[in-house]
Amino acid sequence: MWNDRYANHAAVRPNTLEGHFDGVGQKSGDRNQQAGGLPVSKIATRIARRQLRQKQEEERAIGQRKADEHYMRLALQQARRAQALGEVPIGCVIVKEGQVIARGYNRRNTDHNTLSHAELNAIRKASRKLQDWRLEGCTIYITLEPCQMCSGAIVQSRIDRCVVGAMNPKAGCAGSVMNLLQVKGFNHQVDLTTGILEEACSQMLSEFFQKLRQEKQEKAAGNTETSVSADQS
Amino acid sequence: MWNDRYANHAAVRPNTLEGHFDGVGQKSGDRNQQAGGLPVSKIATRIARRQLRQKQEEERAIGQRKADEHYMRLALQQARRAQALGEVPIGCVIVKEGQVIARGYNRRNTDHNTLSHAELNAIRKASRKLQDWRLEGCTIYITLEPCQMCSGAIVQSRIDRCVVGAMNPKAGCAGSVMNLLQVKGFNHQVDLTTGILEEACSQMLSEFFQKLRQEKQEKAAGNTETSVSADQS
Repeated sequence: MWNDRYANHAAVRPNTLEGHFDGVGQKSGDRNQQAGGLPVSKIATRIARRQLRQKQEEERAIGQRKADEHYMRLALQQARRAQALGEVPIGCVIVKEGQVIARGYNRRNTDHNTLSHAELNAIRKASRKLQDWRLEGCTIYITLEPCQMCSGAIVQSRIDRCVVGAMNPKAGCAGSVMNLLQVKGFNHQVDLTTGILEEACSQMLSEFFQKLRQEKQEKAAGNTETSVSADQS
Repeated sequence: MWNDRYANHAAVRPNTLEGHFDGVGQKSGDRNQQAGGLPVSKIATRIARRQLRQKQEEERAIGQRKADEHYMRLALQQARRAQALGEVPIGCVIVKEGQVIARGYNRRNTDHNTLSHAELNAIRKASRKLQDWRLEGCTIYITLEPCQMCSGAIVQSRIDRCVVGAMNPKAGCAGSVMNLLQVKGFNHQVDLTTGILEEACSQMLSEFFQKLRQEKQEKAAGNTETSVSADQS
């Protein structure tokens, strides 16, 4: 609304405005400088306030980004623990009021358990810590976009915000195959931020699968050699 | 295809066909009774085979229905265990090759754990029993349509078939809000049967919520009386 007024003013009395921006003293009650129904000094105050708000917003966003990257690094540490077990390296932390309240990493093969995804392990621990199935006020940081089960658990536990590292185009349910975190039909929706330390998260997974393929090829080659020598024997 | 031939035949030689159905002796090589390129006796054999297949199919469906109702009764028993704890009465069993391999009931408030839904409790136990995160060849029986988390877990655990009692129009993810069990984009889809002992499953939930509302009203009425007597004192 004030933009329209400002535009009117600029069209009618450009010089007066210029003078104002140069810091020439203006009195708020000076009706000579009034345009579009508002004194120039009031317009300037509004502009200054808006600029301040924008700056604060930018600073807040930078701060948020730095915090997100910090917690995603902790999630990456968890992913490394999965990797050490030969599991697909996916890690996760849950944060409440700046404190990490739970950590989790993928242990599906190790535990012989479908439910041993990083996110579910962390959600279980967070629930135990807070002694509540509702994880309101919490943010979950995950190195890989969650699957349908984990996205469902995030909504069910009423986590406020979900921060994702790498996307999972084939099976991800935070925007790739579908977005289960923000279905209007459900009684809870989750704020979503993606692409935090995306390269690092993605690279860890790529390297893991590359190594896995190499090992398989070497094994297959080994088997062929054995079979050849068996034939020759 | 044979239907078309039968239609032709019936139009051309209705009496011959009638004779056949009355059991009048027909020889397979009798070209006098051939119509639409097939001898009547062959058509009759095909009809008989088809009727046998239909009967077998019907018997199989009746047997399946009886088995489904049997296992759903066991799931209802589990739901009663939840009710005894004051939890929303939802129960579940997982069956493999005719054997119940895991049971579960809702313990979300008791365990202070988002993950303590009936289905997830049963899936965890089944994974432990089979020592495998893949529950292939299993059927899950649930008294209430699963939520997004549990539907996701059913797909993730590669359960073959899901049998549901009552539907959950506000939050169910096996057809109500959405159908997560049969998304083509995922690497596994689950066979789905709904409406098994629907009335019993539904009634148990209705009674639970009715009782809950009554208790709340009585509590509210009690509070009002206390507050009135406090005012009067």
